[in-house]
Order: sequence, then structure tokens, then C-alpha cells
Amino acid sequence: MSDSRLSSVALDVEPFRVMALLARGKALEAQGHRVLHLEIGEPDFPTPEPVVEAGQRALAAGLTHYTPAAGLPALREAIAQDYRQRYGLELDPRRVFVTPGASGALQVVLGALVAPGREVLLTDPGYPCNRQFVRLHGGVPVSIAVDASTNGQPDAQDLARHLGPRCAALLIASPANPTGAGLGLEALERLRRQVSEAGAVLIVDEIYQGLEYGDAPLPTALSLPGDSVVVINSFSKFYGMTGWRLGWAVVPDFMIDTVERLAQNVYLAASTLSQHAALAAFAPQTRAILAARRQELRARRDVLWQGLRDLGFDVGTAPPQGAFYIYANIARFGLDGETLSERLLEEAYVAITPGSDFGVHRAREHVRFAYTQPIPVLEYALQRIARWLGG
Amino acid sequence: MSDSRLSSVALDVEPFRVMALLARGKALEAQGHRVLHLEIGEPDFPTPEPVVEAGQRALAAGLTHYTPAAGLPALREAIAQDYRQRYGLELDPRRVFVTPGASGALQVVLGALVAPGREVLLTDPGYPCNRQFVRLHGGVPVSIAVDASTNGQPDAQDLARHLGPRCAALLIASPANPTGAGLGLEALERLRRQVSEAGAVLIVDEIYQGLEYGDAPLPTALSLPGDSVVVINSFSKFYGMTGWRLGWAVVPDFMIDTVERLAQNVYLAASTLSQHAALAAFAPQTRAILAARRQELRARRDVLWQGLRDLGFDVGTAPPQGAFYIYANIARFGLDGETLSERLLEEAYVAITPGSDFGVHRAREHVRFAYTQPIPVLEYALQRIARWLGG
Repeated sequence: MSDSRLSSVALDVEPFRVMALLARGKALEAQGHRVLHLEIGEPDFPTPEPVVEAGQRALAAGLTHYTPAAGLPALREAIAQDYRQRYGLELDPRRVFVTPGASGALQVVLGALVAPGREVLLTDPGYPCNRQFVRLHGGVPVSIAVDASTNGQPDAQDLARHLGPRCAALLIASPANPTGAGLGLEALERLRRQVSEAGAVLIVDEIYQGLEYGDAPLPTALSLPGDSVVVINSFSKFYGMTGWRLGWAVVPDFMIDTVERLAQNVYLAASTLSQHAALAAFAPQTRAILAARRQELRARRDVLWQGLRDLGFDVGTAPPQGAFYIYANIARFGLDGETLSERLLEEAYVAITPGSDFGVHRAREHVRFAYTQPIPVLEYALQRIARWLGG
Repeated sequence: MSDSRLSSVALDVEPFRVMALLARGKALEAQGHRVLHLEIGEPDFPTPEPVVEAGQRALAAGLTHYTPAAGLPALREAIAQDYRQRYGLELDPRRVFVTPGASGALQVVLGALVAPGREVLLTDPGYPCNRQFVRLHGGVPVSIAVDASTNGQPDAQDLARHLGPRCAALLIASPANPTGAGLGLEALERLRRQVSEAGAVLIVDEIYQGLEYGDAPLPTALSLPGDSVVVINSFSKFYGMTGWRLGWAVVPDFMIDTVERLAQNVYLAASTLSQHAALAAFAPQTRAILAARRQELRARRDVLWQGLRDLGFDVGTAPPQGAFYIYANIARFGLDGETLSERLLEEAYVAITPGSDFGVHRAREHVRFAYTQPIPVLEYALQRIARWLGG
């Protein structure tokens, strides 16, 4: 029995199943086993040197006081400028809010849109925290099943069935976690039109933007017309700044005042030091480092995807477009995702994430592999998995 | 008319009145006027050198990846150790959660306790964001008026009238913003008993702890018996680390699991760099710097309090015990707080905060002065105010 003083909403927040696996992995490591970590949603790369140096300079200059709630004006301008350079977009920096991680961005964006009882449509599978954010704001998360049969995006008929007067927003991600699926401009525009005709807002999580391995980069939803698109982004994944806890949101004009007031109240401001360091994230030197990392991640993806495929995992007919995950169907092995994840850890010392951390839609048939480790580690993991499957 | 897509709850979040004054102050500065800033809730001191150096070392060592959601184990242990050294308390570090600012702490603590419809009792006047946090979780903020006649703390009868089955918590601060009032152990224990008998939790915001100017330090609410006390604290104010966005919560056993799950979902973790830097906050060298700053703040308080008193502001019969604010009654000047704040800025170039930013209880009769500036600035401000009052 849980204590009656706890909020029923908070009690319903599910733990990540991967956390138990992480704890068990640590125990195995303490016993002397080498655990291979294919569960971690954080690349092994350190923060690029120019960003670290900018952080050092900011510290040396004593820049340790609060910034404005919406972020350092220079960083908001730099982010807008980057959209100009990369996508040819004119973006008013007043629409850019620098936030403590994409988490902070989701918080103020959902806070601005979700009144109690309002619905937010989410993909299943999807990033597990999103449901909780919606519920903590008194909103109702509504799942839309996506899989290979829908190209990893909400199907138009499904979406039509769920869009109603209580619907505040559709939240999607491109590239997506856990599937790595990306959305083209046409697909995005179709979703935007459908959502905005229903009076709702399209929120696109682009935190894996830049980590795309096709010939052309994926588009940003900021290229879409109208005033009903919000973009969430982060310095964590592409820019290699996870521990700095820095992200941003780009909101339409009608949300600016509300998001500003929420930011003032909810978190005051993002870390000053992180913001000064992030000014170097757009420098040519940093870009060169990030381009090399993208190539490395692409090579990792190819190794892991091909390797899993060869071992009989159902990983689709082509490697995922972006992020650093492979969402594999494991139905043919006759084990559900949680059991397979547990046994792979206990018996082969390979840590992965069960599909049940990302939703319920065919979740038991899936596991997620992350290629956030160097190729030799991935190859070693594939060998161990091969032996385990054979044994 | 606001856009119907915005959440009604978010629309009800009031802007801080001081923000308009800040913007106006900037405009005056752009015109060449020297504005004296007695509105800022952030000391002018930089972060102590040993903390900055620890940050530099962490950066040099490449410590830029995520930490566990509850914080670096070494920092949780250091915080627990500090309670041991300063207050003789044995504290299980598992009860300590390192958070992105006190804001992050409030978020997970209120998230754990406040289900929709549940009430949280707050002091009026009080820190303005607290009401919003409660409302954003679907809760109902209920104000309890406090003033000099109640020694700045909720009166027992008032409290009894408000405590009911829907009440999740009483949230108080010691030392308090904006009054600077502190609570002794007996007063805290009386509140704790009354609150816990009603099945609710006592949350004590101790972010100004350490900034106390009496002969003995104020107690921490963690000294109280039972399992119904939560303490919120921060590295911002006493430790001079505002821009680092780092705080902590100490929660009773029954909340640990829930707060951990919320932390994982709501913000993932506090800044890694800030956490490594904060390890140096408890070093003897840092303590010496902080002790000197406390003396400086005490001297500032005495100058500002006496000066305001001499000018006819009603600032009570003794200077406030802690924090760095003086909450002055201005009824005798025949102007409400907002008008006086505006005119003082426009006509004497002194920025202060109107009482209406802190609640409604006698708010129009009050303004808040912060002594976060050096004594010469305070003296100059007093001169300008004197001339303005005389003119």
C-alpha cells in the first residue's frame, strides 16, 4: 500500500524498466563482469572542445549570475541564425526560448497548452516521459499506434479519429525515439494541416535533428506555414551536451507571452554557464567535429543494423533514418521484450531496453538497441548475442 | 482576447510586476540614467572561487555526461554530511535529491503530493512562484495571511481553519521572502504537529538558510521528528551559485520512490558541471568566504533598515532576521506600492519591488527592498529616496 499522502497522479508515473536493468547491470559489473551498454540514450562522445573552452572562458569571466528567463539574447539570436543558415528560414529570435533541456521546453510548452482535461495525442511507441508531462499538467495523453506499417508516423485516419474539440496538441518526434524514423516535409505538412484544422497545435520534437544519415537532411517543422507549430530541440544529442541540460523551444507568436511567464515561474532560467558555452556550438570548428561524429554514428548504425539483421532480428528492410536507435522486433525468438532484455543482460552481459518502456503498442514484441558505443563494442555485443542465441 | 488554444491555467499565471519595472529601468539606463537596483533577489557576489575552480576542473576532466536523476552520489553524501556538521543531524543521503534549482525541487515535491483538487496552504506574502507551481499541478493554492502581528508565521487558529481533508501540504519559508522572518524550532514544531495531525506534509523552503544575522543560526526543519517534513534548499542564495541552477530537496522515506520517478521524467538530472562544482561549496575555504559575505550582508541590512526607518518607512521594531530583503509598510506615504515603486523608479531612479508581487494581504501597503548591492549603493539610494520624499 502506498502512502495516502502521495498524489494519485504521481503514483501512476511508471518507472522506466531500463532503470532496474541499469541497477542490475551495475551489480554485475561490481561482480567483475564486463557489461556492454546498448541501452544508453547518450552518445559516448565528450562535449566538443570549442564548447568546453567557451565554458571555461565564461567561468573565468565570472558569468555565474541569472540570465533572463527566455535565455541569453545572444544565444536566442544564434539559434535563430542557425535556422537561417541551415534551412534558409527567417526566424524572429523572440520566438526562441532557451530552456533547461528539452525537458524544460516540454514543460513550458505543454504548460501553455494543456489545461486539465485537455488531450495530447502521442505516438506509441514514443519517448516515455511525454505521457507523464501531459498527466502532470492535468491533461490526458492519448496514444496513436505507429509502426512500420504506418511508416512510423500517425496514420491520417487514426489521427482524424482522435482529433476532437478537447485535443490541445499532437506531439511527434523526427527523428523519433525509439524507432529512428524521420518525417519528410510533405508528411509534416499533412499532419500540420490536419491538426490545425482541428484547432490544435503540432509539437515536433527535433532533439535528434542533425543525427540523420540519409543523403539529404530531414526538414524542420519550422518550415511549415501557419501559426500552429511548436518545435522542441536540445543541445544534448547532436551537440553532445547532455550533462549541460540545455535545450530550446520555438513557439508561434500567440504563445510567446504565456511561455515567458511560465519560464519565469517554473525554472527562472537555464544554466548561465551552459548558455555561454552553447554559443560555441554553432562555430565552424564545432560543426566540423559534429559532422565527423555523424559519420561515425552512421557507420555504427550500419554495423549494428546489418549485424542484428544477420542474427534474425526483424529490423525492417532499411536502416532507420536518424537518432541512434534500432527498434527491433523479436517476436520470432519466442520471448517478450522484458524477458529477452533480462536474459541478455544476465546471460550475455549485454544491456538493452525493452519495448515496454516506450508504450504498449506491440511493445512486448520489441527491444531497443542504442548505437552510442564504438564499433568494436557493437561488434563484441553482436558476437555475444550470436552466441547467446545459438546456445 | 487571448488565443483559445492556450491553457486557462497558464493564462492565469500572473506576470511579476517587477518585470515591467525592470524593462522600464533598462530603458532609463539606455537613456543614460544610473538606476540603483534594490529590486534584485540575487546578491552581487560572484560564485566563490573554490567552487568556480571545481567547475574548471570538472570541465577539464570532460565531466559532461548525465548524472543519475537523484544527483551525484558524492554530492548527496556531501549535503547529508553538511547537515551532520552544522546541525548534528544523521541524514540518510537517499533522502537527498539534487535538483535543477529550488524550482526543480518544488516541482518534484509538489508533483509527488499534489493531485488535482488538493490544496496547498501558502503564506501571503510569499514567494510568488509557489502559487503557480501548485496550480500547474492541478492543485488549489490557499493563502494564509501573515504579517508582523503573527510574527510572519501562520497563526495556529488560522491554520486550523484551513487544514482539512483536501489539504496536501503547508509550504512556508524560513528565512522568508519578502519579509526576512525566520522561524525558531518551537514554532516549526508547532506547525509540524498541527499539519501532520491533519494528514498533511510540512514543506519548509530553507533557500535563505545561512543568511541569518542573529546570534545563533536558525534551525532546520529536518530537526523535527516524524515523517511529514520536506525541506527545499538551494545553492543559489547562500552559496552564491544562482546561474548554476542547483538546489536540493530532503524528503521523508515515503516520498523517495515517487520523487525519484518524477525526477527521471520531469528533468532527467541537474547540470553535471554544477553538481561537480557544488562539491566544493562545503570546503573550509568556501565556508570562510561565505562567512565573510554573511557579515557584509548583515552590515548592509543594518544600514538599509536604519536608513529606511529614519526616512519614515515602517520597517518594524527590529531588523529582519535573515535573507536579504526588507518588507516595508508605506501606508503613511499615501501611495500604494505599485505607484510608489513606479514613481521611485521614474523620478529617483531607484528600483524596488511592489508588495503586490508577493500576494494580496496588505500587499498594496508594502514594497520590498533588497540589500543585494554594496553599502555605498544603498546609501546613495537612501539619499535619493530622501530627496524624493522631501521634494
